[in-house]
Parts: sequence; C-alpha cells; structure tokens
Amino acid sequence: MSDKDDEMVVTPWEVRGKIDYDRLIKEFGTQRLDDKLKKRIYKIAGESHFMLERDLFFSHRDMDWVLNEYEKGDKFFLYTGRGPSGQVHIGHLVPWMFTKWLQDRFGTRLYFQLTNDEKFFFEPDLSYDDVKGFTYDNALDIIATGFDPEKTYILQDIEDIDLMYEIAVQVAKKVTFSTARAVFGFENSMNIGGIWYPAMQAVPAFLHQHLTGEKVPCVIPCAIDQDPHWRVTRDVAEKLGYYKPASIQNRFVPGLQEGGKMSASDPMSAVLTTDKPKLAKKKVMAAFTGGRDTAEEQRKLGANPDICSVFKYYTFIFMPDDKDLENIEKKCRSGEILCGECKQILAPMMVEFLENHQAAREEAKERIHEFSAERLRTEARK
Amino acid sequence: MSDKDDEMVVTPWEVRGKIDYDRLIKEFGTQRLDDKLKKRIYKIAGESHFMLERDLFFSHRDMDWVLNEYEKGDKFFLYTGRGPSGQVHIGHLVPWMFTKWLQDRFGTRLYFQLTNDEKFFFEPDLSYDDVKGFTYDNALDIIATGFDPEKTYILQDIEDIDLMYEIAVQVAKKVTFSTARAVFGFENSMNIGGIWYPAMQAVPAFLHQHLTGEKVPCVIPCAIDQDPHWRVTRDVAEKLGYYKPASIQNRFVPGLQEGGKMSASDPMSAVLTTDKPKLAKKKVMAAFTGGRDTAEEQRKLGANPDICSVFKYYTFIFMPDDKDLENIEKKCRSGEILCGECKQILAPMMVEFLENHQAAREEAKERIHEFSAERLRTEARK
Repeated sequence: MSDKDDEMVVTPWEVRGKIDYDRLIKEFGTQRLDDKLKKRIYKIAGESHFMLERDLFFSHRDMDWVLNEYEKGDKFFLYTGRGPSGQVHIGHLVPWMFTKWLQDRFGTRLYFQLTNDEKFFFEPDLSYDDVKGFTYDNALDIIATGFDPEKTYILQDIEDIDLMYEIAVQVAKKVTFSTARAVFGFENSMNIGGIWYPAMQAVPAFLHQHLTGEKVPCVIPCAIDQDPHWRVTRDVAEKLGYYKPASIQNRFVPGLQEGGKMSASDPMSAVLTTDKPKLAKKKVMAAFTGGRDTAEEQRKLGANPDICSVFKYYTFIFMPDDKDLENIEKKCRSGEILCGECKQILAPMMVEFLENHQAAREEAKERIHEFSAERLRTEARK
Repeated sequence: MSDKDDEMVVTPWEVRGKIDYDRLIKEFGTQRLDDKLKKRIYKIAGESHFMLERDLFFSHRDMDWVLNEYEKGDKFFLYTGRGPSGQVHIGHLVPWMFTKWLQDRFGTRLYFQLTNDEKFFFEPDLSYDDVKGFTYDNALDIIATGFDPEKTYILQDIEDIDLMYEIAVQVAKKVTFSTARAVFGFENSMNIGGIWYPAMQAVPAFLHQHLTGEKVPCVIPCAIDQDPHWRVTRDVAEKLGYYKPASIQNRFVPGLQEGGKMSASDPMSAVLTTDKPKLAKKKVMAAFTGGRDTAEEQRKLGANPDICSVFKYYTFIFMPDDKDLENIEKKCRSGEILCGECKQILAPMMVEFLENHQAAREEAKERIHEFSAERLRTEARK
C-alpha cells in the first residue's frame, strides 16, 4: 500500500499526516465542544480557561450529561494517563495543566494511569528496565504539575496490577479480537500483550466504583487519538454495571519543528522537562516559525503566526492572557517584531517555567508516596 | 466444515473424537516415555510407580535432561495447574497423585496454578462469582491431595496477579497473534482475554527463578492437551533468560460412561470429590462396562476389560498392585466374575476413598493459608 505523506492517520499509537479535526469529530463520532458547553463549564468553575477559549480542547463525549449530574450534586472523577515510553516534554504538560484546573475548580478526584505495560508491548525496542525507569521519571513530572495529593492517585499498570486485573478480565471477556482489530487496526503480527492492553486502559474508568461502591461519572481529559479506547470502554461499561465514561479531548500540541505533534524522540522538536535551561533556550532559538526569508522582507510584509511554533507556545502555555497574545500576534503580522526577537521573549519564559518545574520535580522525589495507589488498597479493604 | 464424530481434536480447551496417542506424540513433537527413562526415574525415586508402568504418563519433553541435572545436584521444581470451571472429579486427582509422588520422592517445590482468569475468558456462561467460588472450592481438593505445605504454593491467577503480571507482560511481548492462532486455533471471535491468557500460563514456569534467582529446571506434570502451551512457553523461555520447562504428560482419564474424557459437566460420567457416598455408589453401579448382554453369555465367553470404565478405575487409582489388577482382569476375561459383582468391589473402594478425601477437604478449609502464595511475596521482598 502506498501512503501519501499527508494522509491522516490517527490511532492511539500513531499520529501522522495533515490532521483534519473536523473529520476526526465526524469519524470518531464525538461532539464539538461548543460555546454553550464552555459557558456551562465556566459557570461552575467560576472562571474561563484559555485552553477552552482557544479551542485546544475542542471535542467531547457526554460532557452535557456530566454537568447535569454535577448540578444535581453528583460529582464526577477525572481519569487521565500517560504512556511512559520516554521523557516528558512541555507539550505533555499542557493537557495535564488543564486537568489540574478541572481538579481544582470542580474539587474532583483524579486517577492518573501510567500505562507502562502498554508502552512495553507497543515499543519493540523499549526494554523492561527502560519502561520501569520512565514510569518513575514520568511520575515526577505528574506530581510537579501540582495535582492535589489528597485527591490524586497515580496508577502504574504493572506495579498496581493487583488493583486492576479483576476489572480488566471482565472488560477483556467482552471484547473480541474482531472488535479490537476494527477499532485499533491491529495486525496479526501484533503481540498478544498489545491485543490485551485495551482492557487495561478501560480499568481506571471503572475503578472508582469498583473500590468505593460510588457510582459517579468519569471524565477523561485526553488527546483525541485516545478516543478509540473510549469507544471500547463505553461499549462494555453498561454491560458491567458502570457509567460510560465521558471525555474532553484536545488537539495535538505541535512541536518546535514544522508539522506533526511534539515528540520526545526527535530531540529538537520538543523541550523536555529535564532539559538544562541552556539547551531549552537553544531549542527555542532553533524553532520553526512563520518568518520571511530576510529581515527586510519581514519588516515589510510581516510574518505568519498561524504556522509558527513559537506562537503556539504562547497560545497553549505562556500567554494565557488574550491581550498579551493579541499584542504579539499584531506585532508578528505587521512585521514590527522579527522571529529572533520574538524567540528572545519566549526563551526566558521557557527558562523560568523549566526552573520552577524542575524544582517541583526534585521535591516530587520525596513526595511519590503521597500520590501512591497504596491508599486505594486501604480503601478497597474497608 | 464437516466434523466426523471420531475426528480427533485436542487443544487445551477441547478434547474430542477417538484419541490416537501415537499421533499426538508425533504431531506435538514430544518424546515417548520409554522404559529406559522410567528406570532412571525409579532409580532416583527408590521405587516404581504404577501410573508410569501402566503408561498413564506416556509422553514427555526434556525429562532426560532434567534427570541429568538432578544427578548433578541441580534440583527441579514442579508446576502443574487446574482450571477452576467446575467441581473437581476423581479423574482430576489422578495426575495430582502422581505429582505428589514426584514431590515426595524428589523432594521438590511445587507451584500449583489455579487459572481462574482462563476459565472466565473461555467459558462464556461462567460468571465472575462462579469462577471465584470454584477457585476456592478446587483449592480444597488440591490441599486434600496431600501435597507438602512447606513446599507447595497455590497460585490463583486473579488474586496473585501481582506476583505474575511482570513475567506475563514479558512473555506476551514475544508472542504474536499469528503464533497464538497457529498454536491454539484462536478465531477472530476469541475475546482479547483469551488471546492474552497463554502468557499467564507460561508464568509459573519462570516464577521460581524470577523470585528466588535460582535457575533450576521446571517439570510440568499435565495432560497432553496442555502441550501447545508449553510449546509457546519453551519458545520464549531462553529469550527471557529461563530454562525451557520440561514436562511429563498423561493420557486423558476416561469417564464412567462410554468414550471421551471424564467430565464434571456430564453428571453421570464422573464421581465428584464432593459426591455423597450414596450417589458415588450409584454412579459406579451405572458405569459402562465391557460386559455381555446376558449373565449366561458372560459366564461362557467372559467380558472385555479393555473398554470397561470400572477396570479403568482399578488401573488408574484403586489397584496399584499389579497382582490385584491381573487377578480381576483374569476373572473378567474368563467370565468368572459378572459386571455387577465387579462394581460391588469398586463401590466400597470408591466410598472409602471419598470419605478420606472429604475429611481431608474439610481440614483443608483451615489450612488454606499454609499453601498461600503470600509466602512468595515475602520471598520476593528479600
């Protein structure tokens, strides 16, 4: 088969080509996160959020129902996850920050799944020791994001399997290979762990009720490439006596280089959370922009922020205030600012952000137990 | 596809048709358990065993190598298992008794796996509660068989998954769906738990080394229908740094009715370990035999013990002494004894056996902890 370079492929394990988000909403059968829904969220939250305003989160399932329940006094819990196949980069933190906002504003519990079994199954060259190392390493970044330790439970699939297997076997019994193949595109060359894995990703959506007996809605903030998992999870949920999980879905956070999603495997495409400030600055200065070939031309014609990765950083992280963003956009389009100058604005923001995150990451080493799933075992024994 | 009634089908989940054991050895690629090997076993054991003498155990993999290692001072451990999809019947106990003999005579550790995840995946009508109930129930029968508590560890897949998942994921990564389909005949309608399961059945073959660091051979006493699992397990073993497990394989223990293997799902075909003596006696009296149509004819022509289920009971359990067995066989073939009389000999033997087993089964309720995998967790933490 010939793959055109720009053909869109979006699965939980592969995102490539030119992403058409409207088509994803249609093909995946999700709903657009419209202004009316955003207003409902803001009303409860008591404030708006720039990631919603700027359509970073753009799609959802069942959020109307979740808010109805919330208004009736029926709180939801949050579930999100991370596949620890490498180091965390700044792009990974973006939806986590939004998740933290949801946790803070809605006062909800969060189950954060580290899918180390998944990454071991799906990454041929990832050794078991690698994946264990990244599990620990990535947990530090999760904690450094600032989630509430009293309400946040980090689940590590392999280490916490005793809490999860009982539910996973019940999910797995209800999903045939035919279904898994249709939803995820599995080939016969897929290993039997990878085929099993979707059962594990369903578990945190059901774990809360399983452990506490409380039947409350589940909201999954995640990138839209994970939606195939939620289709399977939703399909089995009611058969097993659980609510179908709702979700609120974000676009892919673009990298520092042209096109595609930010990737930890392409060293210059992303700033890692552990990058030394000097290296981060270097990456920023080498970023792809929408600038012109010469300074003269740019002063005259202006640049294009729509394709600029520096502008994306402002949009998704560093300029939550619309006035700041409009200001830099105006300067960019008018040619008042050159790309080098603009990067000089981003660089210290990035450095400050990294310094804070890295300090929190150091502290996290002493705080891992505060987020441990061990507390769920105690809860389960009650 | 048309299936002839006598077409042989032998997989871990289905045994039907006329069983050709020579063909199984050839097709599965195992070795015949010959006199030379039996003698080597007896030499170390210090005695012979009627189940070997009578070819109940008839096939093996790598037992020569295991005995070589044993003679060098390198002990093996035993691994066997049971799928708790129903109650245990007398036929199930037969290979367990042989396993106990191996444990006693060779002084080895035994890992006894209760594959409750497997049975849940493979039996569409078995509920999760059913399988949990049978797991407990079957454990009582295992304990009542008389294994050495100091050397025996009952592993329950779901309950002891924390000990097993780490190894299972490493096995699963090395087995593709193509392989699993070729070895086990999985269809696309198989659920993803069933596809995953072979990774779980491999685990106890590797667990000892994983937990203790001791690289010692593993011997699996089992019915030959389990051999496909060991092919997969052996295939991945060395890649993961373990020895390939050896095995010693038995024929199917026939039921009380004509043909097939003893089955707990056909109530008259098998005596359950929990049957009341009266019911067990009734089952014995209703058993299929090789008798003639009339007493007169039988007195004249004799009967045929080769197809008689009562004679099979003598052979596999109740007459370990060859003289007893030869005596009854002679009387049968000569017409000296009628089937009803012969059943009257078996019935009290069965009743006595059941009474002893059931008493041990009652005691087992207080002794479950003695066989618990909990001790392995302590070992693992060392």
